[in-house]
Amino acid sequence: MKREYCGVFGIYNHAEAARMTYFGLYALQHRGQESAGIVTWDGSALREERGMGLVPEVFNERHLSKELKGDIAIGHTRYSTTGASLLRNAQPFRVRYKNMDIAIAHNGNLVNTVELRSRLEESGSIFQTTNDSEVIVHLIAKHMNGGTVEEAVMAACREARGAYSLLILANDKMIAVRDPHGFRPLLLGKVGDAHVFASESCAFDLLEAELIRSVKPGEMIVIDKGKVHSYDMDMGKKRHHCIFELIYFARPDSMVFGENVYFCRKAMGKQLATEAPVDADFVMPFPDSGVYCAVGYAQQSGLPYEHAMIRNHYVGRTFIQPSQDMRDYSVRVKINPVKDMIKDKRIIIVDDSIVRGTTIRTRVKKLRELGAREVHFRVSCPPIKFPCFYGIDFASKGELIAANHSVREIERFIGLDSLHYISIEGLLKSVSTPDDYCLACFTGSYPLQCEGNLKSCLECGC
Amino acid sequence: MKREYCGVFGIYNHAEAARMTYFGLYALQHRGQESAGIVTWDGSALREERGMGLVPEVFNERHLSKELKGDIAIGHTRYSTTGASLLRNAQPFRVRYKNMDIAIAHNGNLVNTVELRSRLEESGSIFQTTNDSEVIVHLIAKHMNGGTVEEAVMAACREARGAYSLLILANDKMIAVRDPHGFRPLLLGKVGDAHVFASESCAFDLLEAELIRSVKPGEMIVIDKGKVHSYDMDMGKKRHHCIFELIYFARPDSMVFGENVYFCRKAMGKQLATEAPVDADFVMPFPDSGVYCAVGYAQQSGLPYEHAMIRNHYVGRTFIQPSQDMRDYSVRVKINPVKDMIKDKRIIIVDDSIVRGTTIRTRVKKLRELGAREVHFRVSCPPIKFPCFYGIDFASKGELIAANHSVREIERFIGLDSLHYISIEGLLKSVSTPDDYCLACFTGSYPLQCEGNLKSCLECGC
Amino acid sequence: MKREYCGVFGIYNHAEAARMTYFGLYALQHRGQESAGIVTWDGSALREERGMGLVPEVFNERHLSKELKGDIAIGHTRYSTTGASLLRNAQPFRVRYKNMDIAIAHNGNLVNTVELRSRLEESGSIFQTTNDSEVIVHLIAKHMNGGTVEEAVMAACREARGAYSLLILANDKMIAVRDPHGFRPLLLGKVGDAHVFASESCAFDLLEAELIRSVKPGEMIVIDKGKVHSYDMDMGKKRHHCIFELIYFARPDSMVFGENVYFCRKAMGKQLATEAPVDADFVMPFPDSGVYCAVGYAQQSGLPYEHAMIRNHYVGRTFIQPSQDMRDYSVRVKINPVKDMIKDKRIIIVDDSIVRGTTIRTRVKKLRELGAREVHFRVSCPPIKFPCFYGIDFASKGELIAANHSVREIERFIGLDSLHYISIEGLLKSVSTPDDYCLACFTGSYPLQCEGNLKSCLECGC
Amino acid sequence: MKREYCGVFGIYNHAEAARMTYFGLYALQHRGQESAGIVTWDGSALREERGMGLVPEVFNERHLSKELKGDIAIGHTRYSTTGASLLRNAQPFRVRYKNMDIAIAHNGNLVNTVELRSRLEESGSIFQTTNDSEVIVHLIAKHMNGGTVEEAVMAACREARGAYSLLILANDKMIAVRDPHGFRPLLLGKVGDAHVFASESCAFDLLEAELIRSVKPGEMIVIDKGKVHSYDMDMGKKRHHCIFELIYFARPDSMVFGENVYFCRKAMGKQLATEAPVDADFVMPFPDSGVYCAVGYAQQSGLPYEHAMIRNHYVGRTFIQPSQDMRDYSVRVKINPVKDMIKDKRIIIVDDSIVRGTTIRTRVKKLRELGAREVHFRVSCPPIKFPCFYGIDFASKGELIAANHSVREIERFIGLDSLHYISIEGLLKSVSTPDDYCLACFTGSYPLQCEGNLKSCLECGC
Repeated sequence: MKREYCGVFGIYNHAEAARMTYFGLYALQHRGQESAGIVTWDGSALREERGMGLVPEVFNERHLSKELKGDIAIGHTRYSTTGASLLRNAQPFRVRYKNMDIAIAHNGNLVNTVELRSRLEESGSIFQTTNDSEVIVHLIAKHMNGGTVEEAVMAACREARGAYSLLILANDKMIAVRDPHGFRPLLLGKVGDAHVFASESCAFDLLEAELIRSVKPGEMIVIDKGKVHSYDMDMGKKRHHCIFELIYFARPDSMVFGENVYFCRKAMGKQLATEAPVDADFVMPFPDSGVYCAVGYAQQSGLPYEHAMIRNHYVGRTFIQPSQDMRDYSVRVKINPVKDMIKDKRIIIVDDSIVRGTTIRTRVKKLRELGAREVHFRVSCPPIKFPCFYGIDFASKGELIAANHSVREIERFIGLDSLHYISIEGLLKSVSTPDDYCLACFTGSYPLQCEGNLKSCLECGC
Repeated sequence: MKREYCGVFGIYNHAEAARMTYFGLYALQHRGQESAGIVTWDGSALREERGMGLVPEVFNERHLSKELKGDIAIGHTRYSTTGASLLRNAQPFRVRYKNMDIAIAHNGNLVNTVELRSRLEESGSIFQTTNDSEVIVHLIAKHMNGGTVEEAVMAACREARGAYSLLILANDKMIAVRDPHGFRPLLLGKVGDAHVFASESCAFDLLEAELIRSVKPGEMIVIDKGKVHSYDMDMGKKRHHCIFELIYFARPDSMVFGENVYFCRKAMGKQLATEAPVDADFVMPFPDSGVYCAVGYAQQSGLPYEHAMIRNHYVGRTFIQPSQDMRDYSVRVKINPVKDMIKDKRIIIVDDSIVRGTTIRTRVKKLRELGAREVHFRVSCPPIKFPCFYGIDFASKGELIAANHSVREIERFIGLDSLHYISIEGLLKSVSTPDDYCLACFTGSYPLQCEGNLKSCLECGC
Repeated sequence: MKREYCGVFGIYNHAEAARMTYFGLYALQHRGQESAGIVTWDGSALREERGMGLVPEVFNERHLSKELKGDIAIGHTRYSTTGASLLRNAQPFRVRYKNMDIAIAHNGNLVNTVELRSRLEESGSIFQTTNDSEVIVHLIAKHMNGGTVEEAVMAACREARGAYSLLILANDKMIAVRDPHGFRPLLLGKVGDAHVFASESCAFDLLEAELIRSVKPGEMIVIDKGKVHSYDMDMGKKRHHCIFELIYFARPDSMVFGENVYFCRKAMGKQLATEAPVDADFVMPFPDSGVYCAVGYAQQSGLPYEHAMIRNHYVGRTFIQPSQDMRDYSVRVKINPVKDMIKDKRIIIVDDSIVRGTTIRTRVKKLRELGAREVHFRVSCPPIKFPCFYGIDFASKGELIAANHSVREIERFIGLDSLHYISIEGLLKSVSTPDDYCLACFTGSYPLQCEGNLKSCLECGC
Repeated sequence: MKREYCGVFGIYNHAEAARMTYFGLYALQHRGQESAGIVTWDGSALREERGMGLVPEVFNERHLSKELKGDIAIGHTRYSTTGASLLRNAQPFRVRYKNMDIAIAHNGNLVNTVELRSRLEESGSIFQTTNDSEVIVHLIAKHMNGGTVEEAVMAACREARGAYSLLILANDKMIAVRDPHGFRPLLLGKVGDAHVFASESCAFDLLEAELIRSVKPGEMIVIDKGKVHSYDMDMGKKRHHCIFELIYFARPDSMVFGENVYFCRKAMGKQLATEAPVDADFVMPFPDSGVYCAVGYAQQSGLPYEHAMIRNHYVGRTFIQPSQDMRDYSVRVKINPVKDMIKDKRIIIVDDSIVRGTTIRTRVKKLRELGAREVHFRVSCPPIKFPCFYGIDFASKGELIAANHSVREIERFIGLDSLHYISIEGLLKSVSTPDDYCLACFTGSYPLQCEGNLKSCLECGC
């Protein structure tokens, strides 16, 4: 099984479609930094450019002004959690089938890929990538017996189980689909005469586009000859939005699932202050992930907020190894404490996660060396005990510290005076439609089972 | 006249001197992003590598492990404010003179360059760069008539007027000098058996080096055959530290001039709240420059702190132009407001400067469009009315909005409900030795006149 | 229709298979400079690296030593004559089908691609490239119903009509196939314990491999678990080797079709001297294409051979446009006459082709300006009057000067004192098996018709 | 001591001066492939661009159209034989001195560098490179006490001893100088209204410029405000042209020293056939260096000329190491024999040099393996027994095979049936002014002694 974070963007009827898509992907860069791609319809064929790296590394002015012609475009930015970060897996995935050029940009993760693939191969399909997108394209092709591409997409979606937010170009038709459970976000907007789609509203803000609404779970929106058609594929009832979009994946200035991400995070911080108050000198985040919760915690508790660890804005992808004398370099280089603030202080740190605990442990140790009297830690996410099959990568079960250790054990391992994770109930108080979220990673109750054997899924480590 | 921001770093007696210098420069990257260079003494000659770009772009593993051999090194990172960003101006500047290899890394700005240069040319000196460093090297050479390099450096410093923090390698001797007024910072530290020098203490933190003390104004420290010698060049009395290091140039986790930068900025914010209180719903910074003052303002005023504008961490050096539809793109791409926080709110923004006012004006206009009821602005720096001759680049006088406009005019131009700049007296309350700072850019009282005609200096626009 | 020049190389059972393939492709670089690729079997999966550009530009040491692991490899170097020089069309083409990794390297051109493709699409196949290789892979997949890959390859070859020399990796099996007419060359060799395949013997020379024999037309050689099996697919009788390999495509130090290329070219030159003698002061080539014929002509005629035009060895892919004053720059930069040799001389130029005539015209004009008294031209190739459907790209019919103009017209256009093309009969005297060659481009008698309408093929200009 | 091959080019009064210089350097690429540079006068200052690599690698369209503005330019292409191939040593060398921008492009080698340098350092000069050019610039500066730059150049030339062909830009003046002995070539030409200078006439051919004459030994040509002035510096009588320009350094389509290079080389081949005839089946060159002599030898002897070794035109700067099985790869990759031509044949190889003999030995061994009955070798250059101090790099004395071994010993080492070097007298027959050439590398009679101790020079290996 393969899990991917991704961002998708599409625009229909804009004179500079590729350029707008470039900037849309730029705003969605946090959803995937491994590869990026843009496909446009130039009036007679699809044109594409894909590459490894960040959006500004993949595209240049020539691509946007000369090569990616046309006023319809989709784009994709991808982060894969598997080792196979080949260019061939970069999206949008593009094929030619019976005089139709089809491109697909996909965010999410199917749970019946293996079964679909082997069924397709039985009837002669050949695969070039390990992407779910390629599986979906084959499904569409199989269902296109004289019918329209819309019908084929609908039929394909009935067979695909799992999480998917799709943008499809089929020649000059643009099709947006969201799975019936609504695991991943997908939004519809408008800028001038153009329609736009994006994973998060921050992409609309950069383009000064207006957010209209979410694509609904189970909805297919088709834009054809300038007309917008909505189809209710009506395949499911219950919604299962991924709460991690709110906890840490989406940008705080975005709207997703109808929620303001900043407000949710601040509410989580307030809830933490209510659930687990402690007397202290100040509240601080690990920047930048913990900033919004820490602000909420500080406001609720009445304690001062301090930005006492400083982020180095020039930290990039440095591959040079530090000197042997520089222990814990990788922990230190990203954020550095303001030394004089720490001595003799009682500190509350608020952050959105504890993955392995080793980084936090090193940081806490440093704070102790600098003279901190007490260090308390508050986490705006309940303990993650189960893997996600729908597209969020926690390290495999063995590495999820909360899956194997009690809160007290983790507290001791990190060397904290106190540790508290937000409760599931507390977390749900921070959102407006608490029944619509998937909580499987906390509870193990999966809304959709992964195909095959759960045990082998847990063990595969992918 | 030429002004430069720069960071310097040196290390003596470390088995991985070049690598340590690399990481030291990495921590000082904010002091100069245009070019970087490292020079090492390999036991028989100096080796150098310089290039345009950020530190990780200039150096690769081969440079550090194969080419920049030796256990003594100096490095430099530079930002020039003139158009002439040629590789030839990258530092350290290196020459060969009578069997001695000399390299020099320089932070600051001389005020008598033109006079020194023309005097040197009269006696046959030829120049290849427009750097002050080259002038200093020529001065050193002229004074090396059979004497030691230390004597020559001292003689050169007596002729050079202005701001300079220097690190010099003369074969295997390392020499650190700070001008008698102490305009720019320079610190001495220790890591294991090695001595280190750096512009700011954040470089020591990354290397786990210990800060010992500042190089004193007018002091020359020579490390020769492992021995450290300090010479008091005793050329001046009055100190003139550049207060802009504290206002915005140094990193908030650094110590410079014996001050904790974070504390100073927070104190400025508190002072602003005292000088110019206003009733409002919350206080927010323009991230990240205004964060520390805003935290101070919020604490002093008792108003909530909100991080209501979000910085895009992937914004880099994109050269692709946005679409014509994307007005104010460059303002928007860097930070984006959390829309729903703004409506009907009375907002206090705290930041460290107003340069031309146009960016802030665009942002304030956006806040109004989103429904802000009141927008107040507080600046942690007094109005800048005069150019700096010692190494800080404000745009030329014509562009300094405060030089030509009253506070009320600026308030109206930006469209604010109220605007307040910190008072000079208030600013000085935030530092521990208020008499030791240069305030020329606020007052026009220059501690050292620029050579030649002030008027032409103001007009030259350099 | 798409025509491609290509070189293929394969090696089985060599500890440095990727490295040997790299050097094999290096020797075959003249067969394709647009893209290159290598695929290896690493013991459990295929690994690939493909890229645009020359072989040394595409691969680096890391690819060869770290990534392209395994002791079985195939490689491809490609020159496409269509505008679509996308990376996705680079070969070897690789897919995954039912637990088998398949890669294919293809030299040649099918004539029934369109028909095969539409038939495959009817049954649900999706295409990603415009390569014939992808068509062949789909055919193989369709035929692999429980049988072996060898059987499937054989079945696919029975459906594919046209020119193809194939190297296939199917997991750890290597399969070499040559079409029944033997249009394109493919050779088998041996170096140590390894078997090697290559388009030309010059690749074997570089690797110090020994040439064993040609893969026979209609033969499939399979190497499986170290055993070599030969299958006679027996699909055709008549051979149709492409005589252009001998005229100009293959390297002069190669063997192809059992012929020594150098000897053939010299024999063509001798035949020209016999067919069209003329009194002159010396014989010269346009280097380097005409050298071998010119040597033959000089020997047969008894006239001196002079290397009177000098090739600039540093001419590469310069994209900078010359100054407006530099007329005919692109003609001049490649070869330059030795001026003093030309004045008052009667000159015979020998070359292997006249495409549009414009370059030669400019050169002949220059020789006249330098004082040449007579200029005679001898061409070692009969007039090309018809397009090739099997993989050689002459410009489309409109541009083939000999298709539309008589020899006398061309003579006048270029400004020659005399022009002679070798006769078809004369050309065939230079090879040892004259009945085995395809002469369609001279005669219009095609051994295999292109699918569909000949007229539209001629007009398509592809 | 440092020896350099170089090419220089200059153009005065051409609207596209930089572009013309680019193409001039392109034609002179064979004189230096390590670095290249162009300096232009833009009307108020010099502009430069220099870089490591071939001419097309160093410059791009932006340099030529945007940055290197102006209608006066000089350029340089350099190959250094020392390890120190730093960018800082790339030429033209440029400095600023008393409101004058000076750039200098230098071909040749001074013999009194060390003495000049130490004298200059005594008076305070500082050096940044190890180039002779920098020494010359300092000399010019020292002599510019209120006088003109022409006078200063003349005075500098009186102090500089050795080989130099110089092109100097001093603001908008262009100055061309050739040393009084005329060691290195320098030519004056004209294209339209522009004057051009170049090391060889092949640069003029590419630009369609007309060759006017050589700059005379001891002549200084100054172009100032469009006027051309010639000054006879009258410092020497005897000419000492470097005969290696004719033997192998210059391009065969060039004129240098008033000689046609192709004719000279063919005459050397004819002379070899006269001096050392032998019965054989054919004459062949090692391409491309031996082609012109081999043609001469074949014509004189009446034996057939065969191009029996084929050069791989794609051999570039590959850094990937061959497989361990590929012995003698570097010998084989460049040229490959036509195997079937060799068997049972008696072969005469003609080439222009034997350096260490090891490459030739490998090639001769290969010919024997392929069945050659006899292999005879003829060299168009007398045995080189002494190093050159004027700019030609033979490996140091220890590596010059002819300096330490008799012809019979070399013959045996290589495994030849016979070996003959052209006689000095025979060599001089191939030129028109035999008294004007330097023969020091053959005879040890140096026209100008190297400064200091000859023995140490021989031993320094530089």
